[in-house]
Amino acid sequence: MMTVEQAAAQARKASWELSSLSAQVRNDALGKMTQKLWENREAVYAANREDLAMGREEGLAAPLMARLTLDEKKLTGVIGGLRQLRALPDPLGRTLLARELAEGLCLYRVSCPIGVLGVVFESRPDALVQIASLALKSGNAVLLKGGREALRTNEALFALIDEAAREAGVPEGWAHLLRTREDVGEMLKQDQAIDLVIPRGSNAFVRYIMEHTRIPVMGHADGLCHVYVDESADIPQAVKVTVDAKTQAYAVCNAAETLLVHEKIAPAFLPALKAALDQKHVLLKGDEKTQGLIACEPASEEDWRTEYLDAVLSIKVVSSLDEAIAHINRYGSHHTDAILTRDMDSARRFAARVDSAGTYVNCSTRFADGYRYGFGAEVGIATGKLHARGPVGPEGLCTYKYVLLGSGQTVAETMDGTLSYTHRDLSEDCPL
Amino acid sequence: MMTVEQAAAQARKASWELSSLSAQVRNDALGKMTQKLWENREAVYAANREDLAMGREEGLAAPLMARLTLDEKKLTGVIGGLRQLRALPDPLGRTLLARELAEGLCLYRVSCPIGVLGVVFESRPDALVQIASLALKSGNAVLLKGGREALRTNEALFALIDEAAREAGVPEGWAHLLRTREDVGEMLKQDQAIDLVIPRGSNAFVRYIMEHTRIPVMGHADGLCHVYVDESADIPQAVKVTVDAKTQAYAVCNAAETLLVHEKIAPAFLPALKAALDQKHVLLKGDEKTQGLIACEPASEEDWRTEYLDAVLSIKVVSSLDEAIAHINRYGSHHTDAILTRDMDSARRFAARVDSAGTYVNCSTRFADGYRYGFGAEVGIATGKLHARGPVGPEGLCTYKYVLLGSGQTVAETMDGTLSYTHRDLSEDCPL
Repeated sequence: MMTVEQAAAQARKASWELSSLSAQVRNDALGKMTQKLWENREAVYAANREDLAMGREEGLAAPLMARLTLDEKKLTGVIGGLRQLRALPDPLGRTLLARELAEGLCLYRVSCPIGVLGVVFESRPDALVQIASLALKSGNAVLLKGGREALRTNEALFALIDEAAREAGVPEGWAHLLRTREDVGEMLKQDQAIDLVIPRGSNAFVRYIMEHTRIPVMGHADGLCHVYVDESADIPQAVKVTVDAKTQAYAVCNAAETLLVHEKIAPAFLPALKAALDQKHVLLKGDEKTQGLIACEPASEEDWRTEYLDAVLSIKVVSSLDEAIAHINRYGSHHTDAILTRDMDSARRFAARVDSAGTYVNCSTRFADGYRYGFGAEVGIATGKLHARGPVGPEGLCTYKYVLLGSGQTVAETMDGTLSYTHRDLSEDCPL
Repeated sequence: MMTVEQAAAQARKASWELSSLSAQVRNDALGKMTQKLWENREAVYAANREDLAMGREEGLAAPLMARLTLDEKKLTGVIGGLRQLRALPDPLGRTLLARELAEGLCLYRVSCPIGVLGVVFESRPDALVQIASLALKSGNAVLLKGGREALRTNEALFALIDEAAREAGVPEGWAHLLRTREDVGEMLKQDQAIDLVIPRGSNAFVRYIMEHTRIPVMGHADGLCHVYVDESADIPQAVKVTVDAKTQAYAVCNAAETLLVHEKIAPAFLPALKAALDQKHVLLKGDEKTQGLIACEPASEEDWRTEYLDAVLSIKVVSSLDEAIAHINRYGSHHTDAILTRDMDSARRFAARVDSAGTYVNCSTRFADGYRYGFGAEVGIATGKLHARGPVGPEGLCTYKYVLLGSGQTVAETMDGTLSYTHRDLSEDCPL
């Protein structure tokens, strides 16, 4: 059995191979994965039944058992995702900038893989295939650690996709499945071999990872999304969108947790909203002004910082757009926040000033998702400010390098005047 | 006197204003800076003379005194840089992706500022203007800490550029000058208010910063650049480029420190190179094979890891392109590495597999520089893999957000079939 250090070193070596593997080989591997998963589905279901039996014995809660289950419906979804990902354009080798620096000396900014990823994910075994295939599509090697409850299912899935990839010509060690919690601790120490850690899971878990590694971490700890109903909002539309943002699903990071309402529209809007949310049995917690307009529980300062992940909505009446923006930037998690308005100046100010990965106008925060954005899939949603923000698909797992092609140019020649900078943008792709 | 915490909080507030400031205001501010610096140049020189007098008293070394000096020639350079930066296109508000997700629901990926930067830089006072102006061009607020030796000059420069920016309409607190080493320690704690720390300076200093903050750090600790002379290289051209990469300047991060030579060309190339480098009094340290071909000192394993920043070059003879690539990926610093070759397949393999911010073909590593790339200026050179790589200009100080414009769309409607995903790429800019 390989140690985590050895696995990471092997992944690093494989990453160099992966960086010059053709799109055809990577896409072939995705194709073979769909085939092998389908052909061997009975073995996968059998492994999953073992995990489920163990889960029942351990008394796992019903929602967890549901997430752990991998049946034909979910497998069909996984295979559909693989097919979509295969059909997406190659994120690698794209020329992002082309510029002649001086005669015969051309600079190209070219997209390339990040290198080696370490991804720790929750108990959904379908996530394993999604993450590994995203890594491969974008030319990255990957260390994977799934939920303990799903170990047998993950091992079965991993064996199949690894075999498929190897048969297509992907180098050995492109992916490794870690098995224990101790393995994760070891993984976090491999800052020489791993370029990026992506933790998925609870707030506390993500924070733990961030505090225990020197490797850059991408992801989100919180999803505290806001809906702001502006003075000029269309009330029926605002009710419809707010209900969707709060109730279309509860335990998700892109659900609304706090509603901000302009004081001029609050007396008309809040009773209409309450009628709609009462039907969905949503508990409302409001500030003083809200309590003056509708029956609700009192909200405290703590509520503005709380991601309920449940049928609860905190509500605050604000006296201006700028107060709403300041509230969101102070209490929000930089995930996704929406303004509902008919005033395009308000929309513009909100979109520019709200410091979030997604700033939405007249639509539900629930659209913040890689599949819905057309990315094929997502490895997670990033709420940091650097590199990728929002749903992270294949492009977000790429970086770039500068390729400079010359014919013997030196800096000395630019100093003595025999070579001059031209800085002329080109419309060609990097010829390498 | 404001505490660092207060300054960071003020910068955070200013950053929201900056994110919706027009390009005209930001460019006006750059224009006013050139004017004020020129009009008040005598006061700046006087402050600089005080710093120089203090430096002489403290016995600063000659190269440090030279870097500390701000005379008319350097100020003219600073002003020229400001003019260039002003003329560059606005890096903000660029639509990087436009896609219809469903009827009437359009997604835009739009460039925006990162937010608040903390930059710690060395004793060159001209760096202060360069960094502050790059931050402003890209809509970022900035905390600046320069070298202690340059404090008076930095204070004089800062007062002028802050006044210029404020007169143009830039919000109060967009920039702060920190004064002491303790201030830097305080700054590193402001992870709620500062988005990115950029340290410039010695290897040890950069590592210290990286280890003492939870704020993301961008920059480079080492600049261990390689030149690889391939089997098919043009020998006179390879000599010329290697001499430039090693000797055009020594104490710079983009100078070559290690030369790798294919064994088939080494017998012809190395004596020609030695003749050229002997004229520049470069000390050569070679592995055994090199020692068999030219007179040189023996190189040890330690040499492959050493950034000399001096007239010293380590040399290793390799038996293949892949051995050269493996050496660079193992010992290099992911900064800039060059291949000299007439074989485009070798160039392609090198460019794809060398895991560095810059992979160069037939030109000197010394071109790795923001000015030379046409970025106007650079805040530093990044050797990490995420966000910006290589020389970081205005674009590298931007991130993006997703703006989603709808007319009341909900996810529930996509579930019940009344709204379908279209995922059609658009060629328009974000209308906000």
